Amino acid sequence: MPMISPSRRLRRTPFSAGVEAAGVKGYTVYNHMLLPTVFHSIEEDYRHLKAAVQVWDVACERQVELRGPDAGRLMQMLTPRDLRGMLPGQCYYMPTVDETGGMLNDPVAVKLAEDRYWVSIADSDLLFWVKGLAYAWHLDVIVDEPDVSPLALQGPKADDLAARVFGDAVRDLRFFRYGFFDFDGSQMLVARSGYSKQGGFEIYVEGAERGMPLWNALMEAGRDLDVRAGCPNLIERIEGGLLSYGNDMTRDNTPHECGLGRFCSTQTAIGCVGRDALLRVAKDGPTRQIRPICIDGDLPPCLEAWPVTDGAKRVGQVTSAASSPDFGINVAIGMLRMTHWEAGTALTVHTSDGPRNAVVQEEFWL
Amino acid sequence: MPMISPSRRLRRTPFSAGVEAAGVKGYTVYNHMLLPTVFHSIEEDYRHLKAAVQVWDVACERQVELRGPDAGRLMQMLTPRDLRGMLPGQCYYMPTVDETGGMLNDPVAVKLAEDRYWVSIADSDLLFWVKGLAYAWHLDVIVDEPDVSPLALQGPKADDLAARVFGDAVRDLRFFRYGFFDFDGSQMLVARSGYSKQGGFEIYVEGAERGMPLWNALMEAGRDLDVRAGCPNLIERIEGGLLSYGNDMTRDNTPHECGLGRFCSTQTAIGCVGRDALLRVAKDGPTRQIRPICIDGDLPPCLEAWPVTDGAKRVGQVTSAASSPDFGINVAIGMLRMTHWEAGTALTVHTSDGPRNAVVQEEFWL
Repeated sequence: MPMISPSRRLRRTPFSAGVEAAGVKGYTVYNHMLLPTVFHSIEEDYRHLKAAVQVWDVACERQVELRGPDAGRLMQMLTPRDLRGMLPGQCYYMPTVDETGGMLNDPVAVKLAEDRYWVSIADSDLLFWVKGLAYAWHLDVIVDEPDVSPLALQGPKADDLAARVFGDAVRDLRFFRYGFFDFDGSQMLVARSGYSKQGGFEIYVEGAERGMPLWNALMEAGRDLDVRAGCPNLIERIEGGLLSYGNDMTRDNTPHECGLGRFCSTQTAIGCVGRDALLRVAKDGPTRQIRPICIDGDLPPCLEAWPVTDGAKRVGQVTSAASSPDFGINVAIGMLRMTHWEAGTALTVHTSDGPRNAVVQEEFWL
Repeated sequence: MPMISPSRRLRRTPFSAGVEAAGVKGYTVYNHMLLPTVFHSIEEDYRHLKAAVQVWDVACERQVELRGPDAGRLMQMLTPRDLRGMLPGQCYYMPTVDETGGMLNDPVAVKLAEDRYWVSIADSDLLFWVKGLAYAWHLDVIVDEPDVSPLALQGPKADDLAARVFGDAVRDLRFFRYGFFDFDGSQMLVARSGYSKQGGFEIYVEGAERGMPLWNALMEAGRDLDVRAGCPNLIERIEGGLLSYGNDMTRDNTPHECGLGRFCSTQTAIGCVGRDALLRVAKDGPTRQIRPICIDGDLPPCLEAWPVTDGAKRVGQVTSAASSPDFGINVAIGMLRMTHWEAGTALTVHTSDGPRNAVVQEEFWL
């Protein structure tokens, strides 16, 4: 694996000092920012995540802030999900599409007030899309990237750790709800959310200077819980069926292809971009869709889409794959044509090291 | 330096096989794509670039294609530069700004026809901005990312190498002009341009499958010219005053602050986004601007903006810096307040290893 050449353009985060002190071994770049990928080894990080609690520098989940009288109207334009029922205190997973229904991002929206939202983005400059629409439509809304950096607590002991730092009330937060909790004399937005299936929280740290004090307080408070620096884990997220924008889906794909049709209410999400295209997709159904796939044999890292075939016929591709210690198999995420997406279908996956036998699964490994 | 964790999201390029075979040692990520940063060492790559010829994988200069009856109109909306005189066959450096005049990108536009352009972008998803405007304004234009990957030839022997592969006519290309030249029975767009001051070409390779045949032909044809795989070089580009979007300028900056005021014709670039803000800037002049700076002592890598002070007063920042073998000094790019931007002004630069004496230069080192 080659080195990453650091520069100002690959932005450091308010937590980078903590990440480096913890001995980060690998990075990726996400929203022009450093995102740790491994501390001990992918396998060891995985076991620890499932057993204890980790603190994740996910500052790269940058926020697009919308505020002003037209913020709510613009939010509904951004997504086929019906936002009419969304209240302050709630987080919504919000697929965002272009006029053809192609995915531009799959952010989580945080409603701060009727006229103020944060959109916590996956890896694309969604800010440019939102600013372009707001400008061209002359909307009364300010769109910007605030100084907000999420820090995640993930793992079965996340509740215990969060309670020690923010008080027991944080345990009562329901999934995808948030509240304000005191840290060091000021309020922090804490949501029950995160990019793992192990449970936990994301703290939206406002003001870079508050980053390391919080990081250090969490590490100190969690010492006997075996808290460690961690990061989104490739194996765990594939087991859990957590999609990665840019890996498992791109602008080529509709939400329906990504299995996100349940978030599309094209009949009621009035004014949303891509509505016409998605009404057609909703009517006909997608012709290919994301599926869990089990692959035989040894696997190289998945750096490019691996073609999936049935005999000589191409029927899809695999875009994420890893060996799962807990399940003793290779877990994978792929997109398959409807002729070959039924559970139990036998396929050939053409990895960069050659062909492997594979079988479509009924469900992800939870 | 930690490792980079590869994944499909950090896209490989049509030339990645060649880059790896040449022993790439470091990468950065640019437009969600791998960009090599070093092959032998930054210093050795630098000396070779200035003496011979290098082939650069700059596929990460992704293209935004605009085609259709409104393509020209939309192009003029994207930039304060007056495009009325632009003809097919020309390339234009084209600062692109938001409604406040903040830089969104600093691409090079290639005019293919009256109704068709490629915009060769720096590191931001300009596609999202252009698509947003085109959609919201109901323009008759298709905006997309085509399968086009630039490959650069840079260095004093670039003309010799290009002539061997594309024929002697390529020598007649003037700066920022392009032509179509035959390779292997099909036409390739070759422009005299590139991100170095050593001269050379950029070949816009259409179709990923044509990447490695061209790479291999260039390596073969240039053997006695000491051709090597190379990449944009940190030292050489600072010496030459070539700005890097995300490093030396961001959305915070106007073109005038970046020394790009000569590309802004806000009186005649009718309809361009940001015109009102830039008319004001043009009238008053910027209050800070990019300057070449010479810094004393040993320097660490510049990973964050280094504050620049005069006594206790902050007067700017340095965003790129490197030790120059040819000039025997540390060359740097910074943005300084007008009170302190005159050549000869003595300053203190606060690097991550402590303060250093510095002096503002009259010109970049060419």
